Amino acid sequence: MRIDIITVVPGLLDGPFAHSILKRAEEKGLAEVRVHNLRDYSTSRQKQVDDYAFGGGAGMVMMIEPIARCIEALQSEREYDEVIYLTPDGETFDQSMANELSLKGNMIMLCGHYKGVDERVRQRFITREISIGDFVLSGGELAAAVLTDAIIRLIPGVLNDETSALTDSFQDGLLAPPVYTRPAAYDGMEVPEILLSGHQAKIDDWRFEQSVRRTKERRPDLMEGKDF
Amino acid sequence: MRIDIITVVPGLLDGPFAHSILKRAEEKGLAEVRVHNLRDYSTSRQKQVDDYAFGGGAGMVMMIEPIARCIEALQSEREYDEVIYLTPDGETFDQSMANELSLKGNMIMLCGHYKGVDERVRQRFITREISIGDFVLSGGELAAAVLTDAIIRLIPGVLNDETSALTDSFQDGLLAPPVYTRPAAYDGMEVPEILLSGHQAKIDDWRFEQSVRRTKERRPDLMEGKDF
Repeated sequence: MRIDIITVVPGLLDGPFAHSILKRAEEKGLAEVRVHNLRDYSTSRQKQVDDYAFGGGAGMVMMIEPIARCIEALQSEREYDEVIYLTPDGETFDQSMANELSLKGNMIMLCGHYKGVDERVRQRFITREISIGDFVLSGGELAAAVLTDAIIRLIPGVLNDETSALTDSFQDGLLAPPVYTRPAAYDGMEVPEILLSGHQAKIDDWRFEQSVRRTKERRPDLMEGKDF
Repeated sequence: MRIDIITVVPGLLDGPFAHSILKRAEEKGLAEVRVHNLRDYSTSRQKQVDDYAFGGGAGMVMMIEPIARCIEALQSEREYDEVIYLTPDGETFDQSMANELSLKGNMIMLCGHYKGVDERVRQRFITREISIGDFVLSGGELAAAVLTDAIIRLIPGVLNDETSALTDSFQDGLLAPPVYTRPAAYDGMEVPEILLSGHQAKIDDWRFEQSVRRTKERRPDLMEGKDF
């Protein structure tokens, strides 16, 4: 899998991609992430990539021309399965979408900034619009980092222990059960006895019950149509 | 506002905080973000911060002791309004929560990693558990970066143009209308004529209609109980 991220703030993505699971995925040759500075595709001497909105109002709008040049340059080099625009009014990202996208080949992710991109970019180039939630960020960069992280950790071989992702919250429609580690007693707070019992079957039952209880309490919406 | 972020991967947060709006907020003295390396609070020579889960299973669990030492050290220096744990099974973050948190004083954000933190950390120290969405990340760091960005940009004076945040998606319960900038014609695609008309009242009406239409099409759930 190759992910090309287009941004006006490439430095914002340095940390997430140098220090996370993505680095390991790259070292293992399982995924490749490239960050492109949109200003490199500007046609103006001032490297302009945004301008005032037609019709007035606060906030700048990202111009179609630099974006078009960048996407067209990438598409002339390889095929892309998706050209994703990260935007608060897109389809809401969730674990099933992460699973689906983890099976794709190459993807472009365009990060909006300021008031967003010229609408014609969306009409002409974008195959999919994705939001990571009902809130507004100063740009799409953190959203692209979130997507990339959530997707790449699902590629087989990226996590050290492959069963690790399978027991995460949401993979079976339930929240994860509580977890405990040493010490067994901390300032009067003890680990549930069952976890120290060594009866694996009973432990598995307890964890499942805890998952169901936690999901019912916190996210009953996830339980709809399920019969636990 | 001061935000203290506790993490085992501090480098992951270098980019987001050095290159974004947060930097500007810090320079203006409106907000301060400090990243703490949890390993600095480990009591072991190997700087251990995680251990195997009681009851077995894949994935490591973050130990209570280093976290307790870090949080207690911070709390001995100043008051905190919230000690937030970023976790997929927390309350779902949204714009109204961002608005609410932007009014707080000091906050601690604890980033989970591996399989999460020992349950007793949540019982003893955490005042609020927040999820940025129904998906799993390799750690809470990107979630903390998302929260911090969404919150800090709402502090008056952080954005250059204060009206800018007010016209974002979600602030009025509607998605933002489409935006356009120069050129007026691009490869046969033209900007809607109304936006070039100069009739500000008509433009405002058109934008409102577009917002409502877009919200009805994409997110009818946001419209419930509204009468547009």
